[in-house]
Amino acid sequence: MKDLNNYIESNKDRFLNELIDLLKIPSISADTAYSQDVLHTAEAVKKSLTEAGCDNAEICETKGYPVVYADKIIDPNLPTVLVYGHYDVQPPDPINLWDSPPFKPVIKPTKLHPDGAIFARGACDDKGQFFMHVKAVEYMIKNNTLPCNVKFMIEGEEEVGSDSLAGFLDDNKEKLKNDIILISDTGMISMENPSITTGLRGLSYVEVEVTGANRDLHSGIYGGAAPNPINVLAKMIASLHDENNHITIPGFYDKVEIISDEERAEMAKAPFDLEEYKASLDIDDVHGEKGYSTSERFGIRPTLDVNGIWGGYMGEGAKTVIASKAYAKISMRLVPNQDWHEITDLFTKHFTSIAPKSVKVKVSPHHGGQAYVTPIDSIGYQAAAKAVEQTFGKSPVPQRTGGSIPIVALFEKVLESKTILLGFGLDSDAIHSPNEHFGVLNFLKGIETIPYFYKYFAELNA
Amino acid sequence: MKDLNNYIESNKDRFLNELIDLLKIPSISADTAYSQDVLHTAEAVKKSLTEAGCDNAEICETKGYPVVYADKIIDPNLPTVLVYGHYDVQPPDPINLWDSPPFKPVIKPTKLHPDGAIFARGACDDKGQFFMHVKAVEYMIKNNTLPCNVKFMIEGEEEVGSDSLAGFLDDNKEKLKNDIILISDTGMISMENPSITTGLRGLSYVEVEVTGANRDLHSGIYGGAAPNPINVLAKMIASLHDENNHITIPGFYDKVEIISDEERAEMAKAPFDLEEYKASLDIDDVHGEKGYSTSERFGIRPTLDVNGIWGGYMGEGAKTVIASKAYAKISMRLVPNQDWHEITDLFTKHFTSIAPKSVKVKVSPHHGGQAYVTPIDSIGYQAAAKAVEQTFGKSPVPQRTGGSIPIVALFEKVLESKTILLGFGLDSDAIHSPNEHFGVLNFLKGIETIPYFYKYFAELNA
Repeated sequence: MKDLNNYIESNKDRFLNELIDLLKIPSISADTAYSQDVLHTAEAVKKSLTEAGCDNAEICETKGYPVVYADKIIDPNLPTVLVYGHYDVQPPDPINLWDSPPFKPVIKPTKLHPDGAIFARGACDDKGQFFMHVKAVEYMIKNNTLPCNVKFMIEGEEEVGSDSLAGFLDDNKEKLKNDIILISDTGMISMENPSITTGLRGLSYVEVEVTGANRDLHSGIYGGAAPNPINVLAKMIASLHDENNHITIPGFYDKVEIISDEERAEMAKAPFDLEEYKASLDIDDVHGEKGYSTSERFGIRPTLDVNGIWGGYMGEGAKTVIASKAYAKISMRLVPNQDWHEITDLFTKHFTSIAPKSVKVKVSPHHGGQAYVTPIDSIGYQAAAKAVEQTFGKSPVPQRTGGSIPIVALFEKVLESKTILLGFGLDSDAIHSPNEHFGVLNFLKGIETIPYFYKYFAELNA
Repeated sequence: MKDLNNYIESNKDRFLNELIDLLKIPSISADTAYSQDVLHTAEAVKKSLTEAGCDNAEICETKGYPVVYADKIIDPNLPTVLVYGHYDVQPPDPINLWDSPPFKPVIKPTKLHPDGAIFARGACDDKGQFFMHVKAVEYMIKNNTLPCNVKFMIEGEEEVGSDSLAGFLDDNKEKLKNDIILISDTGMISMENPSITTGLRGLSYVEVEVTGANRDLHSGIYGGAAPNPINVLAKMIASLHDENNHITIPGFYDKVEIISDEERAEMAKAPFDLEEYKASLDIDDVHGEKGYSTSERFGIRPTLDVNGIWGGYMGEGAKTVIASKAYAKISMRLVPNQDWHEITDLFTKHFTSIAPKSVKVKVSPHHGGQAYVTPIDSIGYQAAAKAVEQTFGKSPVPQRTGGSIPIVALFEKVLESKTILLGFGLDSDAIHSPNEHFGVLNFLKGIETIPYFYKYFAELNA
């Protein structure tokens, strides 16, 4: 593939402009106000796959947002790679913290990306990353170097739990048949320390509602006598962690995978600078479960975080009111062997049980997914590791990260194939935050690395 | 005053229509978006005082919203009554819980007000109540039965802490000179059980901000390792009450007035039906400080309530984010001898001290006021009690309520006169809540009672 670098060099401006056009569409799946934009993004993705040289590009309807499919079958006897990605994005709020509008992409240099980074919601998660595959496949098709069959499945509901995907997989098992699933929706440690994600945490996401009196009350007349749902909710949330930051939900840890000291020692070798970590977040101390290192806390341990809370008067000035209702969105990150349905039930039972008699509590599960681990002795992982070594000049560190891609476990169950998480983003890319960005070099390096994955995957399968 | 009832009967429709016009103006002092409406309300109040027959009606500028003044001096040798009220109102949100628009007044019957109640923000607190005085004085002037001099001082910042009033009092001591201050900004137990408020709680209102990382974070990548300001804030708020719902701020109770068992027994005689209380709020249990009855909890004990809380993702659907900041508005109701400045300092010191090293905490005091008690052996209280007995046919119960009118303590300090809290609202009038209302009969009964207060106050002073 001697001409790969030339191809990238001579086309990189076009690659970037095509990505920027995609980033301009606010495909926020969590907010129905943007449903038309989500659908337009699906159209744009379909177009990009056709222009890349794929066949059978198609908008596949689901009960939710559609899945975009396309493929290039060159020889039924060759192995088939299924590329998964998502074209929907997280809501951009708090909008006022963005230095430039989230859907008006700009390229500017940062400390970690001196050659420039693309700033926009979805730049890294996941438009920028799945688009690397579109461009890598374009190269292989145009230069007749595609060594495997390839199928694309780009969905539009990843940020809201991929509700329609299970049904889509069930209905299209044959069409989606593959030998390996390739996903770029995770990160790597750094350009100098490439890594491949081998573990993902599961997720259980719930919303809780605490109701006190049947109406808002005057805090003077009722304060101290009537239940205050905000105070009650605060006490209930506080009680979910003990003084060592262990989660107090009965049974929560029962099935947590026990990791040997040897394995923990092995993982501890991955480069991690706590001072740099604290400095990058501008915090004086980390905050987590006693008995575990920071990387273990987000890598191998389950967690519980409140993602949003609201109730009472949030406006300007003061209002002496006792709210009738208080709300919180709470998510739990799970590790291998914890079943998210079971955890959601345990949470619901426990949270309801700790409510004082003076309030009413409602728990509504949002969505969830199982944790996943990629075996590093698999052909897929070996091919990915060789590809990274080829283009980064350094063999990658296998790494378990805290994020969740709930559908990875689903793929294994329904499509019976393993997933390789070949991500090129950095933790500092601020995905899900204001000023999300993706390094231009990371983007191009991804396009350069992917074809080698196909090459080695074909060879190792031969 | 044989013709008093005839006057009310033949003018009540006009009284109601004039009040309704006043209620149509959204004089929300907490929200600067309504500043023009607040000023227009001051103009309308001035007009109503002139039309009632008062002299020297004037819009008195302050550093904030103006105070409306007017008087009727019939004889320097007669005692002078200073009527205080406020023309500003609380914000109406949550707006969607109103059955009719908060600033489109409607009159309809309720279970407790079979003859109809006026539904509007400010109907009871305090436009409807101070307007009773305007109409009562109108009657006395028009019928030459005014037995005292009267001065009106109607302000526009009561709902946001009366910041400008202290300065106004200092600058106008002579102009405001009086023998008794009369206020209708409180309630009574019921029409069958009239009561007069003899105690008011003080107030300290603060806003807190907890900051974790310098940006919102992905809860998967950072969850369990980086500080979550919402979880931290919940723990901090929860720790402000112990398992008996005592407030844990060191020194908080040091100066709390000790009330003798005899006095508590006396207060316990006021009719109070706990089952009815719970039923009216639709709660299965009350929630308050151990060792005290419900009426004691809001009457004689200090309390701490969160009036608002917010942080993270509050929108539709799910967002797996760890917020950078979480906020809460917290108010403490104080009892006699607790100094609100001192309590605010104690809160600030304590709240800052319990913050874990992983977050930064900011406490911003909003406003506050001292508690107040009216001696029931004073001439003013005796005159009010006789007036209520005259029109309700039953002698009123002296009652300490939980509300705060911070400036009452200020009046005593600066103007050196006592205040009589002659309120005609009911707890169920939902002040500060959606569907605030004021019974038409309560409104008219107030107009009927007030002239008798003047009569007896003049007689007792003679």
